Amino acid sequence: MGKYRPFDIVALDDRQWPGKRIERAPIWASVDLRDGNQSLIDPMDGERKWRFFELLVSLGFKQIEVGFPSASQTDFDFLRELIEGQRVPNDVTLQVLTPARAPLIRRTFEALSGAKRAIVHLYNATSPLFRETVLGLDRDGCKRLAVEHTALVRRLMEEHPGTDWTFQYSPEHFTTTELDFSLEVCEAVLDTFGASPERRVILNLPATVEVATANVYADQVEWFCRHLRVRERAIISLHPHNDRGTGIAAAELGLMAGADRIEGTLFGNGERTGNVDIVTLAMNLFIQGIDPELDLSNLTPVMREVEHCNQLPVHPRHPYVGDLVFTAFSGSHQDAIKKGMASHRASLASGGTPLWDVPYLPVDPLDVGRNYEAVIRVNSQSGKGGISYLLEQDHGIALPRRLAIEFSQVVQEIADRTGREITSQMIHRAFLDEYRLDAPYRLLRQRIEERDGEVAIAAEIEGPQGGLSVSGRGNGPLSALVHGLRGQGFDIDVIDYHENSRGQGADAEAIAFVELRAAGRPVFGVGLHVNTTTATLIAALSALSRAMRQDEVEGVALSV
Amino acid sequence: MGKYRPFDIVALDDRQWPGKRIERAPIWASVDLRDGNQSLIDPMDGERKWRFFELLVSLGFKQIEVGFPSASQTDFDFLRELIEGQRVPNDVTLQVLTPARAPLIRRTFEALSGAKRAIVHLYNATSPLFRETVLGLDRDGCKRLAVEHTALVRRLMEEHPGTDWTFQYSPEHFTTTELDFSLEVCEAVLDTFGASPERRVILNLPATVEVATANVYADQVEWFCRHLRVRERAIISLHPHNDRGTGIAAAELGLMAGADRIEGTLFGNGERTGNVDIVTLAMNLFIQGIDPELDLSNLTPVMREVEHCNQLPVHPRHPYVGDLVFTAFSGSHQDAIKKGMASHRASLASGGTPLWDVPYLPVDPLDVGRNYEAVIRVNSQSGKGGISYLLEQDHGIALPRRLAIEFSQVVQEIADRTGREITSQMIHRAFLDEYRLDAPYRLLRQRIEERDGEVAIAAEIEGPQGGLSVSGRGNGPLSALVHGLRGQGFDIDVIDYHENSRGQGADAEAIAFVELRAAGRPVFGVGLHVNTTTATLIAALSALSRAMRQDEVEGVALSV
Repeated sequence: MGKYRPFDIVALDDRQWPGKRIERAPIWASVDLRDGNQSLIDPMDGERKWRFFELLVSLGFKQIEVGFPSASQTDFDFLRELIEGQRVPNDVTLQVLTPARAPLIRRTFEALSGAKRAIVHLYNATSPLFRETVLGLDRDGCKRLAVEHTALVRRLMEEHPGTDWTFQYSPEHFTTTELDFSLEVCEAVLDTFGASPERRVILNLPATVEVATANVYADQVEWFCRHLRVRERAIISLHPHNDRGTGIAAAELGLMAGADRIEGTLFGNGERTGNVDIVTLAMNLFIQGIDPELDLSNLTPVMREVEHCNQLPVHPRHPYVGDLVFTAFSGSHQDAIKKGMASHRASLASGGTPLWDVPYLPVDPLDVGRNYEAVIRVNSQSGKGGISYLLEQDHGIALPRRLAIEFSQVVQEIADRTGREITSQMIHRAFLDEYRLDAPYRLLRQRIEERDGEVAIAAEIEGPQGGLSVSGRGNGPLSALVHGLRGQGFDIDVIDYHENSRGQGADAEAIAFVELRAAGRPVFGVGLHVNTTTATLIAALSALSRAMRQDEVEGVALSV
Repeated sequence: MGKYRPFDIVALDDRQWPGKRIERAPIWASVDLRDGNQSLIDPMDGERKWRFFELLVSLGFKQIEVGFPSASQTDFDFLRELIEGQRVPNDVTLQVLTPARAPLIRRTFEALSGAKRAIVHLYNATSPLFRETVLGLDRDGCKRLAVEHTALVRRLMEEHPGTDWTFQYSPEHFTTTELDFSLEVCEAVLDTFGASPERRVILNLPATVEVATANVYADQVEWFCRHLRVRERAIISLHPHNDRGTGIAAAELGLMAGADRIEGTLFGNGERTGNVDIVTLAMNLFIQGIDPELDLSNLTPVMREVEHCNQLPVHPRHPYVGDLVFTAFSGSHQDAIKKGMASHRASLASGGTPLWDVPYLPVDPLDVGRNYEAVIRVNSQSGKGGISYLLEQDHGIALPRRLAIEFSQVVQEIADRTGREITSQMIHRAFLDEYRLDAPYRLLRQRIEERDGEVAIAAEIEGPQGGLSVSGRGNGPLSALVHGLRGQGFDIDVIDYHENSRGQGADAEAIAFVELRAAGRPVFGVGLHVNTTTATLIAALSALSRAMRQDEVEGVALSV
């Protein structure tokens, strides 16, 4: 026999859960202040506990496990402050954990004295490993422990009728306990407590340590639910951990298998690899069109607050909230996102489907309080799509397609050379440096007259050999200028031009893109000016300047 | 209709995967240098690429996707260096990605020229969203794209017979493509390539974006495998992402559903929320007793190397490798771990089962290159178990049970006051400060004689009022000293004493614990000395000193 062995599987040939889908939000219970807190290097101090509690309330949690008051004076004191300071909203139920030991149960009730409503969460270890190695108990002894302390909880509840009590029981290490024994103990607990459909008990089935593929937990949950004598007298709760990295899946398949409730934490803090992450679970429902019954509309400050309280980071790739999860660096992804966003906007504008169906973005970043800024970022893995998107989105510059291709080489060269991410500001600067040249050719002043559709221009231009007076005619100012320059011996022609305004309003600056053929080769120039005509002329001279520089480099005769 | 909708489910009433278990490791393919790299803020430079490649080889990866050479000059150059520098071990196959565009496919073959063996990985987008919004193609056009470029790849492979080629095809966004259409395209690709059981093609089914619960991916994979005309002419590969936090589970259930191969990354780097994490998948097999066919015996340096190359952290709660995943702060967890470890050691020593079955530790930390140091750490959530464990493990001090209970109050008080983690060094210091007092009573010298089982002692002691000469008799040195002190009017008696050596060897120091009853109250003292008798006497005087201090505080008469 080796050191490790395969996990056990559940004999359940007619399992139903694989054909199910989650149709509504479960009851959420946060265990951040207990299971989460006890796993921290530095547990929360008073200030952090308060902030976390208020955060949970603001997100809409109705059941909050606030601690283990019989084991920790800090937890006891916090609970007393919550209750005596009347800090608990009317629709929020406090939950506290207690082991199956009489003095600790009594101490727990002391801690809860005066609470409006509370869940007393009793546990004992039922798994064979714990029975044999840790506790030295047989099955009967283990069951007796649960039953006797359930009876004590029941009696103490009856002695304190001022509180609206709920009882919760966990057979600890449910996932490694024999299923029939978990059932036997839980049925005995339900009987002892006097559970009924009107007096339901929360049976919490913890994957204290995750030991098998997620489907096995679902099988265990379905088996358990189906074998309960009276299913309706229990609320089935799941408490998954994440040792195999499949806590989210285990929770989801467990809900499909019949569970009603989830215990977990924000972003999955908790012992070792953490508890199940309620935010991800809830968002997974949200993007299926199911109301998660939590307010997740602004996740970034929630994440920062949790990072403050836990003094642990949330990973940049954490689903829905990590710094990088809405980011596309790859050119083809950027291109697809751009097209998907445009299609979504067009559909909304035309009264079409509001359905969110944008490539690579399972959720609209705006729905979790993110903006589109971080969606597209550029590095050496990016293509023209991202560059064009950032120039248009952040700087109002909509590149013509051929220019986008040409300019992407410029950015690629910078990215390859630096090996770093290229910010939107760097792209903008590189663009202006490359295309908006005002040397050696610069427009000094011009006079334009139009008669019968024909335009005449007279322009003063600063050139490499001093001033240049250019006169020409054409069907527009650009055409007229180019004709005038050709008259002076420049080998140029217009291939294409585009113009658009940057920003809005009458005073918005225009940006013009002119593509010339100069000495047989295409070359772009860009002009910026509040006057659209002037912008075009500047763009033409910028193209001429660029051609001249290339001419110098490559020795091609631009002018004869 | 709302903005989000439920995912589609698969009509597969007779699904077989939920009753299966993974029985052997899949073929692993790392996409760190491609999918991983293209998602980084700062993509890897040459040095980092080399280091990552060598790391992957050292871990035992046999298939490594090294890039997208037709899209990136850096990737192209890296590939040329790998091939021309003969840096690829004979049993490692390079894989490169190419879109379905003829010039890019040709460029890809240029990049691979001279490779011993290579996988050419062709993809095109087949999902309706991409066909309609991004590409403007109907089903036939989309299929034709795949088929025509498969034919080109086949031709180019035939033209370069010096390389041992494998062909891989991905219907991109498999999870959101109509299953029958994925199948239709893949069958056409297999036919075009001339696939057969002797000439198998890798069909890679990417969850490019994770869109549904993990069982749905498994259903899709099982449906696909069962509907293939000739299952044996394909190697079914999975490429899960992690947008819903269930990438690991999707991969596992997908393997149960019939897949043969996994594409993923180390620790789950990759686009957005990342690719599936191969390390976790492999470790999940390992702890089931299945050979993962990767060398994961020393994960910490692997993690550090990956952090260096990716310039992204691995989270402290990352399964199997995070800084905190073997740590227990909670007292009850610590206690259970202590007992489980002792039981495991005892079983090994007695030739019993070598099975690893220790509470809260799904894997022996030593098996992944961690030690037991980080397992138990102490803060305000901890009880006596952890404190005792650290004192014994790190400082060779095995506390008697009652002393452990008493001392845990001392540590708890420090933890509550500071609100911080208490290190093993701090515990050791606090222990010595509390119990090893040499004032006001200190042993100066002693003479001991034994005759017929009776011990006589004559000791010189420094006391609060100067030197004290004590003579007494008893059945041992401690008893003799206590009788002598009683003769001088001290109201003391011995309750209990323990002694053990710290460390090994003849010169090892002994540690003695003496519990006195002084003025009616129990009080512990500790003595350290290479002479075991002397250690006991020092411990007794330390107990006396502690009683005297308490006496001062509380006004109880210790001596009359």
